[in-house]
Amino acid sequence: MPTVIVESFIRAIERHDLDLALTYLAEDCDYDNVPMGSVKGRDGVRATLAPFLGMFDTIEWVTSHQVSSGSADDGVVMNERLDRFHSGERWLELPVAGLFVVRGGQITLWRDYFDKETLLSAMATLG
Amino acid sequence: MPTVIVESFIRAIERHDLDLALTYLAEDCDYDNVPMGSVKGRDGVRATLAPFLGMFDTIEWVTSHQVSSGSADDGVVMNERLDRFHSGERWLELPVAGLFVVRGGQITLWRDYFDKETLLSAMATLG
Repeated sequence: MPTVIVESFIRAIERHDLDLALTYLAEDCDYDNVPMGSVKGRDGVRATLAPFLGMFDTIEWVTSHQVSSGSADDGVVMNERLDRFHSGERWLELPVAGLFVVRGGQITLWRDYFDKETLLSAMATLG
Repeated sequence: MPTVIVESFIRAIERHDLDLALTYLAEDCDYDNVPMGSVKGRDGVRATLAPFLGMFDTIEWVTSHQVSSGSADDGVVMNERLDRFHSGERWLELPVAGLFVVRGGQITLWRDYFDKETLLSAMATLG
């Protein structure tokens, strides 16, 4: 099931284990934050996520709906999530819809749809 | 398949047939444009969509990925779309990820994730 790959990836993010999370991505994966642009490869994902995730002591990506097709060798997963990030005494919450294309047991495309202003406004409220 | 309901709904939108499109929605459906708010019921959807769709002579919602689970009686569909709207000599294009919950052959929840600023900027370029 391609969902196992995606769920393992998200659990690693939640545990702040970026090294482990990156193993679920293909070396040359595309990571597209739709309103903010895309980066290429594990190095691009690390450079994008490491400073962001490092701002928070607790991370929860709560999936409300998830559907998929195909297999871990050739599959597609989409999920609806509330990505929650805790810093100081505040939670930053971002509603997200994600697309994951899985090939050969790894995520080759990760594309998140969200509202940029919702993210930036929430970040501005952090201490 | 719940996808048949969703695809029929989208084809009706593309044909500017809002009356037909609304028959695919439950009477008390929720329509949530995540960054812009939600409306309730067919009347709410009509009040939201009629003036917007009326601005355009051609509408194309191009689905790049779609996954689903369940049946038309109890199912979930998510799709990744490029919603395209033509007015005058311009195309407005909006990347969207959509969630549709289907119950009893009708859409009870339609939730679209997109970037509000991308939509407003594109609308500002129309004549």
